[in-house]
Amino acid sequence: MINAIGREIPENIAGIKNIKPYSGPFAYTPAGRLTGPTIILNKPRSEKVLKSIEQAIDATGLKDGMTISFHHHFRNGDYVLNMVVAAIARKGIRDLTLAPSSLNNINEEIIPYIEQGVITAIETSGARGKLGKLLTNGKMKKTTIIRSHGGRARAIECGELHIDVAFLGAPACDTYGNMNGVEGKSACGSLGYAMVDAAYADKVVAITDHLVPYPLYPVSIPQTQVDYIVPVEAIGDPKGIASGALRISKDPRELLIAQYATTAIEYSGYFNQDYSIQLGSGGASLAAAQFLKEKMKQQGITASFGLGGVTAPFIEMLDEGLIKAIYDVQDFDIPSIQSMKKNANHQEMSASFYANPHNRGPIVNQLDVVILSATEVDVDFNVNVITDSNGVIMGAVGGHQDTAAGAALSIVVAPLLRGRLPMVIDQVHTVCTPGETVDIIVTERGVAVNPRRKDLRDNLREANIPLMDIEELRDIAYEFAGKPDPILVSDEVAAAVEYRDGTLIDVIRKPL
Amino acid sequence: MINAIGREIPENIAGIKNIKPYSGPFAYTPAGRLTGPTIILNKPRSEKVLKSIEQAIDATGLKDGMTISFHHHFRNGDYVLNMVVAAIARKGIRDLTLAPSSLNNINEEIIPYIEQGVITAIETSGARGKLGKLLTNGKMKKTTIIRSHGGRARAIECGELHIDVAFLGAPACDTYGNMNGVEGKSACGSLGYAMVDAAYADKVVAITDHLVPYPLYPVSIPQTQVDYIVPVEAIGDPKGIASGALRISKDPRELLIAQYATTAIEYSGYFNQDYSIQLGSGGASLAAAQFLKEKMKQQGITASFGLGGVTAPFIEMLDEGLIKAIYDVQDFDIPSIQSMKKNANHQEMSASFYANPHNRGPIVNQLDVVILSATEVDVDFNVNVITDSNGVIMGAVGGHQDTAAGAALSIVVAPLLRGRLPMVIDQVHTVCTPGETVDIIVTERGVAVNPRRKDLRDNLREANIPLMDIEELRDIAYEFAGKPDPILVSDEVAAAVEYRDGTLIDVIRKPL
Repeated sequence: MINAIGREIPENIAGIKNIKPYSGPFAYTPAGRLTGPTIILNKPRSEKVLKSIEQAIDATGLKDGMTISFHHHFRNGDYVLNMVVAAIARKGIRDLTLAPSSLNNINEEIIPYIEQGVITAIETSGARGKLGKLLTNGKMKKTTIIRSHGGRARAIECGELHIDVAFLGAPACDTYGNMNGVEGKSACGSLGYAMVDAAYADKVVAITDHLVPYPLYPVSIPQTQVDYIVPVEAIGDPKGIASGALRISKDPRELLIAQYATTAIEYSGYFNQDYSIQLGSGGASLAAAQFLKEKMKQQGITASFGLGGVTAPFIEMLDEGLIKAIYDVQDFDIPSIQSMKKNANHQEMSASFYANPHNRGPIVNQLDVVILSATEVDVDFNVNVITDSNGVIMGAVGGHQDTAAGAALSIVVAPLLRGRLPMVIDQVHTVCTPGETVDIIVTERGVAVNPRRKDLRDNLREANIPLMDIEELRDIAYEFAGKPDPILVSDEVAAAVEYRDGTLIDVIRKPL
Repeated sequence: MINAIGREIPENIAGIKNIKPYSGPFAYTPAGRLTGPTIILNKPRSEKVLKSIEQAIDATGLKDGMTISFHHHFRNGDYVLNMVVAAIARKGIRDLTLAPSSLNNINEEIIPYIEQGVITAIETSGARGKLGKLLTNGKMKKTTIIRSHGGRARAIECGELHIDVAFLGAPACDTYGNMNGVEGKSACGSLGYAMVDAAYADKVVAITDHLVPYPLYPVSIPQTQVDYIVPVEAIGDPKGIASGALRISKDPRELLIAQYATTAIEYSGYFNQDYSIQLGSGGASLAAAQFLKEKMKQQGITASFGLGGVTAPFIEMLDEGLIKAIYDVQDFDIPSIQSMKKNANHQEMSASFYANPHNRGPIVNQLDVVILSATEVDVDFNVNVITDSNGVIMGAVGGHQDTAAGAALSIVVAPLLRGRLPMVIDQVHTVCTPGETVDIIVTERGVAVNPRRKDLRDNLREANIPLMDIEELRDIAYEFAGKPDPILVSDEVAAAVEYRDGTLIDVIRKPL
């Protein structure tokens, strides 16, 4: 099958049911009903606190072939996924599907369990390092499924991704399962991704290093969704969970990209009182936050809300009254975590509220402007954020597809070259976000507006930025670095990249 | 069929599928999965705000035979139910099931539409006045179903009560459907009952008299659950929605009952640091709050949380630090509404979090002490709160069954006589709450402990209250007022009273 962006999608992919080719950002109309977890009876004053992860595994009835899930708010400080998988392996349970909201380098520890067959399938937003290589090399029994944050929420809620047991790291948890992410030594802030798992998994285990007396509030995940609680010594390494406030880039190229991006916003027609914005956590995005702040102050404009993975520059804007409210699905640094704890204008949201395309409207549907990064982009404005120049998985889709589709203005920032590699090319190796949902590509050499957005191109004529066609950008890149050879791949599909609506936008084939 | 408390339940009841006799408070084990609403696609920047209720009715696709729901937080000030049913009637739609969280006297306005066949079935927590009479007289096409607040949440979540369209009064609502109950001229406080409807109904219409710019927070019901929004002039009469702080009773009989009840709590073994409590909104309950407050101050005891329909005495205890936190499913007065808005220790909760027996544990499961009222009680400690001395529906089950089952100590307060009618009798006309879940009956003449709770009886020996057997209380009542004649009823079942788990605890037959 050839999908709507011209990618060949095999009609059969091992381990993937009901393959639907991508047909446009809002072309697929879903049917059916949301699913739900099994119905149970929990008697008054029942005991949910168990002694060990092993005991919890037994209590959940986890068996060969089931699906387990985790959330990645602990980022590179996560201990939970690794210790649970190790405990499952010790019990001799095999052939599990691992469905975390994402994977980080620290999760490389589970590679031996993948090799031993404890984990034989993975569904994730992405992977890096050795895990990324392993997934690309097609060594899993089943094809890896890559989903955006909104797509994962959708898949869980409609039952496509059925979670048998969710193991959720809880920075603070009471004795009946109410949890939040803002207290305790392993505070990570928002529990936005985990909220979906908790609401739909058949069994939910809270693993905590900060068990508190009942009742704990505010409640991010309620007792009504939690079956068991396991206190442990530590669920994460605070240094890996959250960094201090990130230093703003001094890289002149990043600063130039940030300047072009903010100027593009300024002239786009969307830079109005009460506009809304999501910024990424990359260097250029963080720098853009600084420039945008200055422009907002100069012009007396404030934003109605800010979205996303939250970083300190956003918190500064909130604290200075430049943004009225922040909606937070994940925190990247300590200032963000502290802000969510203390500031009522800093609201936690679930991945479904954030980005699920198949509810009554996620908040990305109300987003004006998003700045997104890219590994590579192509002349059709398609964006790759998942595979590197060797075709190896080294990133994550995250909210890229979701915000690009939802935002009125989606800006992708990328250097024109990385080392000796052009980043604007004829065809990206892997399409994560379709060009139809990308409005502007900003590089240090020039800014290209998607021809679908003549209105934008007109607006930007006034701006003092080097507008050019995307083909010109590609030509400059090729001139400097040469046209890259295509990555040679086998027929073997290692991973399928879902669009947020559950259709397949691309597949990742094993490189030769 | 004879159920576990000896009530005869017909094997066939018109309009009720899958009849299960009550078999004990935790004897029924549920199966299956939670259900969910239909899955839809909502495109970015779609318009949800419609011009009229008629337009919303059209947009939802409401048809003959469907089920509509409402919430009763506006109490006797509710305009929403009446105006929506009138609009539906004008459209010629018929044969609907009306499934509000409860009905108030103000809803008598819909009686003509019941008579015309617009509404032919009702599922509610209760009814009063003319509506109660109408339901008792068996004039509906289908049998009325009476459910507790927790039972209703359960029925909605498991699909037994499938709501096609929920019409939710929204004291504050933004243009994409985020709503809360603490702002606007019709503020009612918690939207706890409506949260369940919003999460499970196929279509959700927010009707608001306070439409605000996007985004509104705090969010009680999220945009992800709301299909349409209709701004109207007024959704309620503030005078009917919330009273000022209620005056504490000066009725010496109520004060005596309150005193016995609080003394019983004091000696029960549950009056400990960090105990938890729910108080009703009746006169004796409010008086009990005052006495309890004094005892807590004297003994230096504070409560970990308070629950329920919230009233000003509770707010005073919260503000004075006697209760650490309040969990709120409904507000009865202005101080309570204001407290929920401003006090982070005053948490809103859904009816499912409050009392649904079939989730991972509602908060009633952690409740130590509840004081409940009663219309009549019997020597088996069964409680009637729904029918009067003529067998006519004149009350609501509310959270009675739920808190009695959940609390470690459930105290029922009732006068021994009302006028010339004994309130402790051989057999209540309608069992709402099974005696097995009732621990103490407190009257102005004496206090009876359920023989199942020998531990409690032992603890109360020390207390200076007139302990007696329940039969003694009955005998005193009969001595004063005579043994009442049984209410003569026909074979016709007008209403079925569900226990919170979905089994039938009793039926209400049409009086002769």
